[in-house]
Amino acid sequence: MMQQKVDIFDSTLRDGAQAEGISFSVEDKLKIVKALDNLGVAYIEAGNPGSNPKDIEFFNRMQGVTLKNAKLVAFGSTRRRDISAKDDKNVMSLLSANTPVVAIFGKSWDFHVTNVIKTTLEENLRMISETIAFMKEKGKEVIFDAEHFFDGYKSNREYAMKALSAAVEGGADCLVLCDTNGGCFPSEVYEIVKTVKEAFGDVQIGIHTHNDGGMAVANSIMAVEAGATHVQGTYIGFGERCGNANLSTIIPNLQLKKNIMCIPQEQLVNLTFTARKIAEIANITLSEREPYVGNSAFAHKGGMHIDGVCKASSSFEHIDPSLVGNKRRFLISEVAGRNTILDKIREINPCISKGSREAEEIVNRLKELEHQGYQFEGAESTFELVIRKQLGKYKPFFELETFKLMTEQPSQTGPSASALIKVKVDGRSEITAAEGNGPVHALDRALRKALEVFYPELSHVHLTDFKVRVIDSNKTTAAKVRVLIESTDGESVWTTVGVSTDIIEASWIALVDSIEYKLLKELEKKIKVYL
Amino acid sequence: MMQQKVDIFDSTLRDGAQAEGISFSVEDKLKIVKALDNLGVAYIEAGNPGSNPKDIEFFNRMQGVTLKNAKLVAFGSTRRRDISAKDDKNVMSLLSANTPVVAIFGKSWDFHVTNVIKTTLEENLRMISETIAFMKEKGKEVIFDAEHFFDGYKSNREYAMKALSAAVEGGADCLVLCDTNGGCFPSEVYEIVKTVKEAFGDVQIGIHTHNDGGMAVANSIMAVEAGATHVQGTYIGFGERCGNANLSTIIPNLQLKKNIMCIPQEQLVNLTFTARKIAEIANITLSEREPYVGNSAFAHKGGMHIDGVCKASSSFEHIDPSLVGNKRRFLISEVAGRNTILDKIREINPCISKGSREAEEIVNRLKELEHQGYQFEGAESTFELVIRKQLGKYKPFFELETFKLMTEQPSQTGPSASALIKVKVDGRSEITAAEGNGPVHALDRALRKALEVFYPELSHVHLTDFKVRVIDSNKTTAAKVRVLIESTDGESVWTTVGVSTDIIEASWIALVDSIEYKLLKELEKKIKVYL
Repeated sequence: MMQQKVDIFDSTLRDGAQAEGISFSVEDKLKIVKALDNLGVAYIEAGNPGSNPKDIEFFNRMQGVTLKNAKLVAFGSTRRRDISAKDDKNVMSLLSANTPVVAIFGKSWDFHVTNVIKTTLEENLRMISETIAFMKEKGKEVIFDAEHFFDGYKSNREYAMKALSAAVEGGADCLVLCDTNGGCFPSEVYEIVKTVKEAFGDVQIGIHTHNDGGMAVANSIMAVEAGATHVQGTYIGFGERCGNANLSTIIPNLQLKKNIMCIPQEQLVNLTFTARKIAEIANITLSEREPYVGNSAFAHKGGMHIDGVCKASSSFEHIDPSLVGNKRRFLISEVAGRNTILDKIREINPCISKGSREAEEIVNRLKELEHQGYQFEGAESTFELVIRKQLGKYKPFFELETFKLMTEQPSQTGPSASALIKVKVDGRSEITAAEGNGPVHALDRALRKALEVFYPELSHVHLTDFKVRVIDSNKTTAAKVRVLIESTDGESVWTTVGVSTDIIEASWIALVDSIEYKLLKELEKKIKVYL
Repeated sequence: MMQQKVDIFDSTLRDGAQAEGISFSVEDKLKIVKALDNLGVAYIEAGNPGSNPKDIEFFNRMQGVTLKNAKLVAFGSTRRRDISAKDDKNVMSLLSANTPVVAIFGKSWDFHVTNVIKTTLEENLRMISETIAFMKEKGKEVIFDAEHFFDGYKSNREYAMKALSAAVEGGADCLVLCDTNGGCFPSEVYEIVKTVKEAFGDVQIGIHTHNDGGMAVANSIMAVEAGATHVQGTYIGFGERCGNANLSTIIPNLQLKKNIMCIPQEQLVNLTFTARKIAEIANITLSEREPYVGNSAFAHKGGMHIDGVCKASSSFEHIDPSLVGNKRRFLISEVAGRNTILDKIREINPCISKGSREAEEIVNRLKELEHQGYQFEGAESTFELVIRKQLGKYKPFFELETFKLMTEQPSQTGPSASALIKVKVDGRSEITAAEGNGPVHALDRALRKALEVFYPELSHVHLTDFKVRVIDSNKTTAAKVRVLIESTDGESVWTTVGVSTDIIEASWIALVDSIEYKLLKELEKKIKVYL
């Protein structure tokens, strides 16, 4: 019998902060709390005030803040051995975080009690029950994280269960079974959670998994199938080592496919947006392949797949992407069909039909470019420009008269490269120069410096990604390279591509497209007023 | 009852090639086949000769190649409706790939038969059995991929089972149950595989999962627990949409934890190396958080965790990282990988011991370079040169006095770039110049032209691969790039690496190492005569 609701407990700000390369400022943390609260998770575990002074500042800043959906959680350990809870500095700073909920972690693996914290098995049980009882006296909702529960259970089942009993005795509101080192298998998680659920029938059971075996999501799902109603994880999965259970996958898995409420129904469409927002705040790249919320999650490349999706979307899509705020994409590639291309053409000129001469010419032009090494799947702006050029719906915003790049070693000036550029706009020339780390950097700077004279709106544009791929790399330094550029003006993001045997020329082509595309979109905005 | 062996079936070159951003050259494919064969997977599915002319070229190139462990597989569909297999162009081109094994996919979901390929349920069964029988007549081992099997089973169980029976009737050697749109749950995969296994007791059962629900690995594991003995996936998980089951996770999950043989035992230590190699060839960034093989998979950041790992590694490590050729990293004070480095040092100077000052200095130098963005996994020649330089067992073969590179557009001469170079060898200078397509090409030519005056043996050297990877790509054109160069003299192959914010400088560093390494090896050969 499946439950109708589970509590989602997000630890992006606590366990997530343990991930390599993650470092949150207090401002970052406040923004992430807001994003998760808007989405409607039940709990936000936001820090460990006992171990981290930055977290104390954060909890102070949170005092005046009212959350719409979530309860704020502070995380800390059971008291140290052989003292009382009120004399334990960490326990007291946990209290000072002034959150409605605390998560207390304690040992449930006998080996760890004797070999890591080095105390007796009995004292560890007292540490658990007394710390929890102390927190309950202070009016807290208490979640008990049974660290290494599964390993403990497999090594000494009786003791692991006693640790849970001690937590219940102390008054814990929820017993969370942790696969701390992330190595458990789904079938054993199911069996163990089921046994615990049967033994502690009236206490809420939670699950906390890690992804060291690549199965954190499945282990969480299996725990829910076995009776857990509280699921811990981090929203986009980052955490110590291989990460935590990915909540942006678990939520739609449960809510869309098992009809188990995790967040308010109307918030499901914000799953993708929230993932991208948190990735941006954390300053990491969200994997393209992330289930549900990744950029490629509903991207179709094989011609057969595209054909299948057009005939019946359930062919190659497990859900309708719009349910989670994501979208279907047909990738433009040598194996993609004509229909995809036609859809794109029609966005620019709706009157062009499948068999028309214009459509044929565009397809031929695209094939020719693909043969040269172009790939449009990551460069939709260049794709649009190619179609516009072919349709005659395009006029360049500037002309290049010349550029000259110089690099030398040893370098005479500081930066190693310098660029001179001369461009022409409406008959008026502008010549200027810039330096950079390497020729492409110098060229990018010089080009924008020259064009800003005519188009001040370019001052907001900057590049956010720059990728180089060598094609047929066995031809070595004379091989073709494909340069992919991602640009932004702070509002939208667009990508362009250039191919050449010369990396400078390939970069130049992509840079020009980036600027032309931006100016085109600005013009479209202005024209709209007159339509 | 668990099996003692499963066959690993890698589809990096077929399903993996469907991933966004992946585009393999024939050379790339040959290299990946070699890497997977060395690792010891049972099957390598390498392409779809019916849909892709590049794949036909690849299979032609494979004709002379003998594999050590793996069998090569060509992939294709059942015959089209209402014709015989021998009259089907795609079936015939599948045959022309001349592989010992073919994978034939067919429909097992009634809805797809009637609505996507638009034929009768009976004709689809004939398409399956006749195509397989045709391939068996031609002496092929035949793997049947039952597309959408789980969705089909849930919608019309009887028909889905009939599709399998048709494959058995045709003589299929293995029935692979595919979760084509990747939305299945582990418990249902287990139940369905178990039922199929019971119904087709003596036929081998395989599993093919996708990661749209983030559970592809777990679904594969559950299938094995239910009786499957053939597991399909892609080595580092990339594939259409959210990717395929990740074999670099599944193999150690099964072999280290369930004692089920997947690859030769002595190859387990190459799991990490192979993952990084395939990522390099595919020109993608391997996720740091990848289970087992990722750079962060055994990285410990929290002080509590580091303390725990030091007291008992099982605290926060599900396996010993060295078992899969990965390493533990403490993110605060990095002391990783010393033994590996020591082994390399001893190849150059056998007298250096673990705790010595020299060993310490080399480790520090390598850490510093890694911090700068160097990666030595694919660049062992640079690695050797770094150690030699640190040990004082190195003297440069030439000095650069200066180089000047010029690029301009529009180009006055034919080639777009020209390089002037001046080098010094034993007090004697040589100045020369060369042109090329792009600055790196011109520089490479000019450098070798100048040095051949002193070292005629360089005339046989040429570059066979040249790769550029942007590190920290969010810093855009001022970001660091890593250039990897592979060189050959017709007998041996060596790789070198350079890192800089300037692509020219990074290329220069790698070019210099390539030439120095070649001259060093030539010298070693000459010296050997006197030893």
